[in-house]
Amino acid sequence: MRVASETVADGVREQLFTIGEIPGALWTPAAGSGPRPLVLIGHGGGQHRKEWGVVSRAIPYVVSCGFAVASIDAPGTGDRPEHPEVKRLVAIIQGREAAGEPVGPEWRELCDVVAAQLIPDWQTTLDALGKLDSVGEGQPVGYYGLSQGGEMGIRLVAAEPRITAAVLGLIGSEWLIDDAARITVPVEFLLQLDDVGNPRDSVMKLFDALGSTEKTLHANVGGHFRVPSFEIDSSVRFFARHLGRTDGS
Amino acid sequence: MRVASETVADGVREQLFTIGEIPGALWTPAAGSGPRPLVLIGHGGGQHRKEWGVVSRAIPYVVSCGFAVASIDAPGTGDRPEHPEVKRLVAIIQGREAAGEPVGPEWRELCDVVAAQLIPDWQTTLDALGKLDSVGEGQPVGYYGLSQGGEMGIRLVAAEPRITAAVLGLIGSEWLIDDAARITVPVEFLLQLDDVGNPRDSVMKLFDALGSTEKTLHANVGGHFRVPSFEIDSSVRFFARHLGRTDGS
Repeated sequence: MRVASETVADGVREQLFTIGEIPGALWTPAAGSGPRPLVLIGHGGGQHRKEWGVVSRAIPYVVSCGFAVASIDAPGTGDRPEHPEVKRLVAIIQGREAAGEPVGPEWRELCDVVAAQLIPDWQTTLDALGKLDSVGEGQPVGYYGLSQGGEMGIRLVAAEPRITAAVLGLIGSEWLIDDAARITVPVEFLLQLDDVGNPRDSVMKLFDALGSTEKTLHANVGGHFRVPSFEIDSSVRFFARHLGRTDGS
Repeated sequence: MRVASETVADGVREQLFTIGEIPGALWTPAAGSGPRPLVLIGHGGGQHRKEWGVVSRAIPYVVSCGFAVASIDAPGTGDRPEHPEVKRLVAIIQGREAAGEPVGPEWRELCDVVAAQLIPDWQTTLDALGKLDSVGEGQPVGYYGLSQGGEMGIRLVAAEPRITAAVLGLIGSEWLIDDAARITVPVEFLLQLDDVGNPRDSVMKLFDALGSTEKTLHANVGGHFRVPSFEIDSSVRFFARHLGRTDGS
């Protein structure tokens, strides 16, 4: 793991790093040292590891709970090299969307291509972060991801026993049913009631499929990109409950 | 309004009162004075104004937010006189339940009989509490009620413009659709996914009918009486957002 830059602002230390080819970001309390719970945040489709949707969660998780938070670029996004297959599939999907057509089978194909690299990359990242003094091994780990970050999250949480709680949602892919059924950790699952790309029935079917004994669906009015800001606060409290508050020091 | 008893414990003042024939309870910060937001809590069927389901919400609302909280006995419960019609209908319904039969048309009849007295009684209570120094008029007012407290709440919030935010749920009565549609204030709506008496589809139909532009459905695993305790915390934060925190003084 190579730290390319380190900045401190408002009590939060941001480290941009690479682990091999994986570009990542790590946020920890500036004043803190020693092991602490970790939250992984998976960004949305076409976004990157420092997008607003990531940082707006990362900062309160660090400030309110003293957690470490990490995010990595998905293949073909952010500081990753161009990924010809991702690029080809995204072009087809965007063309369909522009024409007002359904995204077609390339959406699942894209998810599979991204996941084939991203899931092992998350696991490599977990291994590497565990070796840092400011994270440590054996600490509770959470995952937060909506939309494509939810799609990847369901696959990752199903595969990765180190993750003990997850906020997921804005996704209803029928091919995730089996992965969802393998998830047994507490989940907060988000649904936007006017999300035309992820209809209520498909999202709820995935929620129903989760194998978790503690799972909560939060359904809010509004479109895909209109998750209410109070859901950030709710996720802070969800992770505080399940990963344990630290004293931030 | 006549205060029959006053006790202080753990920083909370509890006053048991009567307004005419209405038996009520008021909780306020022991150290506080002056006007403050008010939350009305409607108890569940067959319960009363000091039931655990009421007190477990009232105390954190007072302690965390400095709110005043009030609860009144529904007709035929708690310190109210026996109500022959309520008694007759409850006996029929309980007989059906004991036999494993559907509750039948008497459930709606019971709700109508209770509401005919309880809704005006809540409004009388609001008038009277507004005259107290520790509550005051023109302050934001919230309502919390699940199950029969949700049934009554939908009717009350639809009728009472002083109520500006509500936590409701565990109810799916089809006859409440029109009342629900008249509600326009922010609502947090609870659904228990294994609540056999209030099936998901009926509860969601009522949630969908709400006229509110801000409404959130919280669906949790478990039966009717198994609302997770973190939903109490969520309601604290909902009311803090919508009624405004006070300094508790």
